[in-house]
Amino acid sequence: MNRLRQIVYEANLDLVRHNLVFLTWGNASAIDRERGWVAIKPSGVSYREMTPEQMVVVDLDGNVVDGKCKPSSDTATHLVLYRHFADIGGAKIGGIVHTHSTYATAWAQARRAIPNIGTTHADYFSREIPCTRPMTDAEILDDYETETGNVIVECFREQNINPLHVPGVLVSNHGPFAWGKDIADAVHHAVVLEEVAKMAFITHALNPQLPMNPALMEKHFSRKHGPNAYYGQSRNRLP
Amino acid sequence: MNRLRQIVYEANLDLVRHNLVFLTWGNASAIDRERGWVAIKPSGVSYREMTPEQMVVVDLDGNVVDGKCKPSSDTATHLVLYRHFADIGGAKIGGIVHTHSTYATAWAQARRAIPNIGTTHADYFSREIPCTRPMTDAEILDDYETETGNVIVECFREQNINPLHVPGVLVSNHGPFAWGKDIADAVHHAVVLEEVAKMAFITHALNPQLPMNPALMEKHFSRKHGPNAYYGQSRNRLP
Amino acid sequence: MNRLRQIVYEANLDLVRHNLVFLTWGNASAIDRERGWVAIKPSGVSYREMTPEQMVVVDLDGNVVDGKCKPSSDTATHLVLYRHFADIGGAKIGGIVHTHSTYATAWAQARRAIPNIGTTHADYFSREIPCTRPMTDAEILDDYETETGNVIVECFREQNINPLHVPGVLVSNHGPFAWGKDIADAVHHAVVLEEVAKMAFITHALNPQLPMNPALMEKHFSRKHGPNAYYGQSRNRLP
Amino acid sequence: MNRLRQIVYEANLDLVRHNLVFLTWGNASAIDRERGWVAIKPSGVSYREMTPEQMVVVDLDGNVVDGKCKPSSDTATHLVLYRHFADIGGAKIGGIVHTHSTYATAWAQARRAIPNIGTTHADYFSREIPCTRPMTDAEILDDYETETGNVIVECFREQNINPLHVPGVLVSNHGPFAWGKDIADAVHHAVVLEEVAKMAFITHALNPQLPMNPALMEKHFSRKHGPNAYYGQSRNRLP
Repeated sequence: MNRLRQIVYEANLDLVRHNLVFLTWGNASAIDRERGWVAIKPSGVSYREMTPEQMVVVDLDGNVVDGKCKPSSDTATHLVLYRHFADIGGAKIGGIVHTHSTYATAWAQARRAIPNIGTTHADYFSREIPCTRPMTDAEILDDYETETGNVIVECFREQNINPLHVPGVLVSNHGPFAWGKDIADAVHHAVVLEEVAKMAFITHALNPQLPMNPALMEKHFSRKHGPNAYYGQSRNRLP
Repeated sequence: MNRLRQIVYEANLDLVRHNLVFLTWGNASAIDRERGWVAIKPSGVSYREMTPEQMVVVDLDGNVVDGKCKPSSDTATHLVLYRHFADIGGAKIGGIVHTHSTYATAWAQARRAIPNIGTTHADYFSREIPCTRPMTDAEILDDYETETGNVIVECFREQNINPLHVPGVLVSNHGPFAWGKDIADAVHHAVVLEEVAKMAFITHALNPQLPMNPALMEKHFSRKHGPNAYYGQSRNRLP
Repeated sequence: MNRLRQIVYEANLDLVRHNLVFLTWGNASAIDRERGWVAIKPSGVSYREMTPEQMVVVDLDGNVVDGKCKPSSDTATHLVLYRHFADIGGAKIGGIVHTHSTYATAWAQARRAIPNIGTTHADYFSREIPCTRPMTDAEILDDYETETGNVIVECFREQNINPLHVPGVLVSNHGPFAWGKDIADAVHHAVVLEEVAKMAFITHALNPQLPMNPALMEKHFSRKHGPNAYYGQSRNRLP
Repeated sequence: MNRLRQIVYEANLDLVRHNLVFLTWGNASAIDRERGWVAIKPSGVSYREMTPEQMVVVDLDGNVVDGKCKPSSDTATHLVLYRHFADIGGAKIGGIVHTHSTYATAWAQARRAIPNIGTTHADYFSREIPCTRPMTDAEILDDYETETGNVIVECFREQNINPLHVPGVLVSNHGPFAWGKDIADAVHHAVVLEEVAKMAFITHALNPQLPMNPALMEKHFSRKHGPNAYYGQSRNRLP
């Protein structure tokens, strides 16, 4: 449990180091699938004062297993994603990151998917990074954080997207979530998501038609992912 | 009085640390409501050479109570806000920050309110951050700094805005003022105001229609403010 | 002569510190009006390796008075400005800075004056920062650097602009020059010019009509300049 | 061979220092023309852990001459450029840099050449920085990295561009490559390319007509290049 807390603690600090979070705007979590434990940042605690011991451990239903602090107010959203992205052709997500990083948040506020128009994007995401539909008043008033997770899952299900091939999403009028096979991967994807969001913003200003080359995008994704990947030294290849 | 000077001194340096002020473009003040003392940055003094002793203490009418320097040329604006935002359902503002931070100033120059289109904004501001009407020639020629305060107060009164729910404003063709229950809060709000101004600028470029979800905005504001707030550890909750 | 070299050396390094120059793109000079000496950065020397001794001293006709290096290729432009901006109601410019700072250069490339739409601008520049007319082929092929100075002087003369009230200019398809009563002032104005260029760019994206309030702009300029200035401690007041 | 590795190692780190590469997105190589050795960054190795010994040495056909790691996945693209840009009026390129730097990549994603609208650009590039045509599905599916080099060469041949006068290119929907007479020069050009891409983006927003002055551009290029160059101390002059 201490190891789980430690990696979650460090991932949260990595978000600050990568300039993805300001003030207390973000949280990272990791899951121990065997024991069913999820460790997550405590709610509203400053990154400067935070300690590994303050990471809160909850089960997949949100009950606190261990920890003195209240877990992040976004915990219920994380749990929905851990429950639903647990059987993707045998694979599962192992870590989740939520930020309000500037450019990704702006695309979310614009309610636009980030288009797959460059190899930087395609090296990590097999298609556009979708933006969820606006939440209804009922969803917002009822169990808001759980419903936030539900609209993400709905978005991936309806568009038939593999969450390990598109390891991130924009929540409409809110901001990005990213994930991965483990929490380091999730942080990595949050960094990439912000950078491709920035590049796509500039591209959009230069050419609003956003020209695409699907074969090139597919090539780059497959250079790094799947059975024919040939990018990186073999130990670095992504699943 | 020394404690008041010290916190004002530190808040002014925080503005530099948060990249909100360049050169001498900004000032922070705090009020001791019991004694009627307002401490504020001296006019045109460089942030690098500034000392706590140089902070000027004035009363609510602008008379210097203590200090060797001339107070900030914007002092009269601060005083109007302290006088008028002193009875908000029993609450009062305790600190004020003025900057020329880049994105917030650009919205002020564009004479546009910063729209409430994302949860980052709604976590701190219950509605759009208004932009004051242009000042008249008479107001500018007469008692300019006092009139600057008056157009801010007029703006909040006419639109029936609670200054503790919208702790900031854009002064037309000038720049932002932010405030809070104390000076730390005011600095915090100035940081948030600049970041949401930047996000809203990017959003506007991606989708000029700036899609809104009022129920979502209200939900986020109430997660952090008011009797049903549940964000943060209890000691961190905002009023 | 060593003191002149030292202040020019330090001003050149200040340009790097303020992120106004990349690589070798920029130069600063100062004049000793009594002796008729102008010290300027050597041409194409890296800022990291530069020493105070390498600053080149020339006279107002461009003859090298002292120094082993070749002076900046832009020296002739500086000299035109020192010769023509020497009698402005008795005042003279004492230092000049040329950079390729990002936003100011972009306005120059767009051939647009930076509009006077905010108090940040008006605190330093009494009106828009002009952009020179495009140079003719003859001017470019003949004595290019001298002619660059000439189009700046022509621009100020034709529009009847006081160079101490508008201490900077954009050279069409090239970049900004800034100046002041001394070289520290010139660096200061180059910093301000870049920041107001950035703010005006963002403003333009938000509202291309760029709303103005001339009385407000005049008020701010006169708060800092002229007989009725009241900004700053008295020793800091600008002329 | 160790010296070659060392300069390639340092050039790769320079890319990070100049903020041109994030994560593992970039690579630099240098050629020893006499021996026919090309040293290049290993594939997918983090810049923080990288050592000089890990630089891979290959011949011009891509056979590994020495090194334990797999060379960069973009090696074949570099080799095409070394083979084809080897006889430019007797001159040859000696180093190549590939990055996904933000603004240059955005122009590549927009499929737009970076226009030659300012002296900053013209000091290094004699005309616009071209963007290659989109690759065909056949080129992408066949020998992708080699074909990437081929479309670059085709672009320069068809438009009759001297690669030492335009030492960089945008690959459509991908990103920039830059080169030079040696690897230090290539890094230098990659830095310039990114900065002029940023300036041109801002210019485009301010004035989409992108006004040009061809005589001015030609003048600036010839100030720094060719027999009549007069910029810099003589030892610094570019070929």
